[in-house]
Amino acid sequence: MDTEKKVFQKRGVDYPIIDGTRTLPGKYYHSREIYDEEVEKIFYKFWMFACRAEELPQVGDFKLIQVEDESLILVRDKSNNINAHFNVCRHRGTQLCTEASGSYKSKNIQCPYHAWTYDLDGKLISAPMMQEGHGFQKDQCNLHKANVHVWEGFVFINLDTDPIPFEEQMEALIGKFSNWKMDQLKIAHHIRYELKCNWKLILQNYQECYHCPGVHPLLTELTPVQSAQHDSSKGAVIGGFMDLTKERGSMTMNGEAAAPPVCDVSGEDLQRIYYYSVFPNLLLTPHPDFVLFHHITPLGPGKITNDCYWLFRPEIINDPNAQAGIKSAVDFWDLTNRQDWQVCEQMQIGTKSKRFTRGYYSGREDILHQLDMEVLKALGHEEES
Amino acid sequence: MDTEKKVFQKRGVDYPIIDGTRTLPGKYYHSREIYDEEVEKIFYKFWMFACRAEELPQVGDFKLIQVEDESLILVRDKSNNINAHFNVCRHRGTQLCTEASGSYKSKNIQCPYHAWTYDLDGKLISAPMMQEGHGFQKDQCNLHKANVHVWEGFVFINLDTDPIPFEEQMEALIGKFSNWKMDQLKIAHHIRYELKCNWKLILQNYQECYHCPGVHPLLTELTPVQSAQHDSSKGAVIGGFMDLTKERGSMTMNGEAAAPPVCDVSGEDLQRIYYYSVFPNLLLTPHPDFVLFHHITPLGPGKITNDCYWLFRPEIINDPNAQAGIKSAVDFWDLTNRQDWQVCEQMQIGTKSKRFTRGYYSGREDILHQLDMEVLKALGHEEES
Amino acid sequence: MDTEKKVFQKRGVDYPIIDGTRTLPGKYYHSREIYDEEVEKIFYKFWMFACRAEELPQVGDFKLIQVEDESLILVRDKSNNINAHFNVCRHRGTQLCTEASGSYKSKNIQCPYHAWTYDLDGKLISAPMMQEGHGFQKDQCNLHKANVHVWEGFVFINLDTDPIPFEEQMEALIGKFSNWKMDQLKIAHHIRYELKCNWKLILQNYQECYHCPGVHPLLTELTPVQSAQHDSSKGAVIGGFMDLTKERGSMTMNGEAAAPPVCDVSGEDLQRIYYYSVFPNLLLTPHPDFVLFHHITPLGPGKITNDCYWLFRPEIINDPNAQAGIKSAVDFWDLTNRQDWQVCEQMQIGTKSKRFTRGYYSGREDILHQLDMEVLKALGHEEES
Repeated sequence: MDTEKKVFQKRGVDYPIIDGTRTLPGKYYHSREIYDEEVEKIFYKFWMFACRAEELPQVGDFKLIQVEDESLILVRDKSNNINAHFNVCRHRGTQLCTEASGSYKSKNIQCPYHAWTYDLDGKLISAPMMQEGHGFQKDQCNLHKANVHVWEGFVFINLDTDPIPFEEQMEALIGKFSNWKMDQLKIAHHIRYELKCNWKLILQNYQECYHCPGVHPLLTELTPVQSAQHDSSKGAVIGGFMDLTKERGSMTMNGEAAAPPVCDVSGEDLQRIYYYSVFPNLLLTPHPDFVLFHHITPLGPGKITNDCYWLFRPEIINDPNAQAGIKSAVDFWDLTNRQDWQVCEQMQIGTKSKRFTRGYYSGREDILHQLDMEVLKALGHEEES
Repeated sequence: MDTEKKVFQKRGVDYPIIDGTRTLPGKYYHSREIYDEEVEKIFYKFWMFACRAEELPQVGDFKLIQVEDESLILVRDKSNNINAHFNVCRHRGTQLCTEASGSYKSKNIQCPYHAWTYDLDGKLISAPMMQEGHGFQKDQCNLHKANVHVWEGFVFINLDTDPIPFEEQMEALIGKFSNWKMDQLKIAHHIRYELKCNWKLILQNYQECYHCPGVHPLLTELTPVQSAQHDSSKGAVIGGFMDLTKERGSMTMNGEAAAPPVCDVSGEDLQRIYYYSVFPNLLLTPHPDFVLFHHITPLGPGKITNDCYWLFRPEIINDPNAQAGIKSAVDFWDLTNRQDWQVCEQMQIGTKSKRFTRGYYSGREDILHQLDMEVLKALGHEEES
Repeated sequence: MDTEKKVFQKRGVDYPIIDGTRTLPGKYYHSREIYDEEVEKIFYKFWMFACRAEELPQVGDFKLIQVEDESLILVRDKSNNINAHFNVCRHRGTQLCTEASGSYKSKNIQCPYHAWTYDLDGKLISAPMMQEGHGFQKDQCNLHKANVHVWEGFVFINLDTDPIPFEEQMEALIGKFSNWKMDQLKIAHHIRYELKCNWKLILQNYQECYHCPGVHPLLTELTPVQSAQHDSSKGAVIGGFMDLTKERGSMTMNGEAAAPPVCDVSGEDLQRIYYYSVFPNLLLTPHPDFVLFHHITPLGPGKITNDCYWLFRPEIINDPNAQAGIKSAVDFWDLTNRQDWQVCEQMQIGTKSKRFTRGYYSGREDILHQLDMEVLKALGHEEES
């Protein structure tokens, strides 16, 4: 490719950009082979967002999380730790749990087939009629576990047997949003979207506002496209912000704040909407008055679920007078989400054409090239860059 | 195969036939690999019927046409030409249009994602915020086009970058039906059928009347099987005719003409029904009083849509007293179509058996062998013949 | 694997077992490649149960049987023999019959496409307009047949062109249940289940009662787990029995016999429920008072239909006072079936995990290892054992 390296300086962070960059080839959105590589080298290797800690408030509470073929039982144990057990009995492989969420009243996990029973922390405590011997050793048959790390109320899991340190992958995130005290926030609303597009198209859509004037007229009125700046681009965490036009405004149907500022948010942050993509499956959007996030679950090259959550302070959620504000924030983002999903799904279809080779990035989309590089690096496909 | 070449003489045209011919092996109806080869070597190489010119009467009118993974926007431009644009934005590959048909009121084509805008003839006229430079050159980013040729109101497209001349592929067709003045006819009726069979089984079914006595008792009464003759077999265009039993009859529920003869149709043509398969996706059936055609769209080895159209002179379509005649023609062919689809779908299922190797053609089906040869030639599989 | 061969002696039959045995690897339940091998080396090679002879009482009666891609017409001919014809016309491969069952009133089989006509025993008797010659010889175009063997009213078919003798595959079965005179029994009830699991999981589930205490509380009350014994393990036929707690009881909702003993059943058999898996697709369960059987039809690595039938003596079926007993037997097994299907479907999902390598068999599941060995032997995969 005919390119020239230089340093991007016109916004809030310096990073090398490449003039005349092109998009990924279409196969990265459609090939089953490349998707299978992504499963092995990204979804099974990176720290992935799983759920909010508040979804498992009591000992025994569980929620199932699907990562491609793997089902995991996230469950709070008696030591108050959150575990992520592979949902697979060690006896003959039966799926232990089929409910999406619930609570183990008995405080243990029993296989419905032959009644092998495990502690909430995965220890095999009963295997009827099994004799220890050549093949079977009871203490070798605890549930397989994924790694778990809780950061500010966000539970991340890592399916690798030798995971990279959480702090290494998430360096740019740690400490960044301390003022929001996000571990104290609660889910006020949740919408699940089923989309027919590749997971990467959602991340790309999230990282540029070149499309905003045409796709999001209301968003563009509240936060002008020209205000978009990037302030982080460390590996898996790419972020930036946009400025609110209206003083003490927010992203709501009428542009007014949905609630008072969150916890210790102050200064410039009162006028900014942050957009942080936490590669590969979390989009984190702190507002002055609430926090929005998207949880992406890939289901094949051309299919995802996208779960969108609105976090508010608990006293706001419980305040009858605050409900109109929450609703206005929900309505604004549901409208904006649907506008985005439409063009992402159209891009999924169009890029299947053999006439589509590689598209062109504008200067407004330079950060997407960096995102593409992260994908290619993770896959070991640097030769495609 | 134990065969003997000779020249077929007993009907209206001489062509070499082979005694003891066998059908294609079953994999030609079921293999995904062979279907993928057909896409590359036939659907993306041959002239394919797309739509009738009358479906795009005004400047800006469009219709989407699907050829396997490729979506094309057929649109009439300001010079009154019909264009076939790949439905793919040159920026990042977004599908430009999702409506099946309609009209570009603005007289240009705008991508819904980042608002790149093209003339009706595909020229990129606006790409906001793009800087020309190393990678991007505006005049290199017009829409990709397929080739278009309009013949007697039938719009054909060719997706090859270096297409064979239309006249070469269609030699046997040109001038053949001038008396019908088909460019003046209009669509009186349209039925879409969704079928579970390979596209070639429909062409084979269309080219022999060996099946008529059992499958089509009414058709056989109106046009005796023995009257079937072939009068063309030039490559992609294979045709013949059958004689009407009843003077001034036609293919209708009561065998009476549905309308006065079309335009200049006269002489022997007043007593004949022509059956022309225009390989690979158009079946053209001129009657004395109307024209029937089928448009086949393959959707995989075992799936097609088959769109059936009835063309009449506009003054007939607009004449209240002529509606019963039109309805009788529609009913006759809808009945006959459904009889054919049933056996084609059963042949699709049966040929999947491992015990089916290659079937036997009767003398009444010799032209099917020629059709098979055209397929094998196009695929470069002559060794299978 | 760390194993030690010894002879199993604690139940009714001696056979070598292996200490510390492990289950098959997960791919045997999920891989399309292994499933395709099973089709070729098991379903197309072994004798497979097809239907009951009573389902074809009259000359001309037919029933379609599907074995993977092959459809077979089981039909009673004029000599009163049951034939199994491949449902494929010898002309061009059209499927001859689409109805699930019925009767050929004309006493011959006619292709709906070009009217080729065959005797009930498959002989081509009419091929209109075909000229014998180089390629076509009428007496070479009879319908392809599968082999048929009727044993005690059970019709088995074998699709191999050179099948192993029926008696060799079924040695352990022949003479075993003579007292039931099963050829005189009739179908009192039939339920079809559509299941999302591999066919082998159903056989494994059927061959062990380790799961009974947790999964089947009622069954465990009627027949204690400790009573389970194996009394046959000859290749494809693996069987055993359990003792009824209640004298003259049976497997019904209240544990009472559903009917008087079947025919000549006497002695110990009056207190036993036999469980015989007739590899690969029949589960045969003689009770003192009726016979239950399951007919498994694999439809891919993770999908089957399972047809469950209840056989009673005809005079019981026709006795109004006996209906409550029949219903109680049906209800008991429908309940028990659904309990089993649930855990089999959960095992199908769980074994897809990459963390599932091979599970552990308990001493109560040793016969499952033998079943696995039969599969591996049939596939030529002994190296996996």
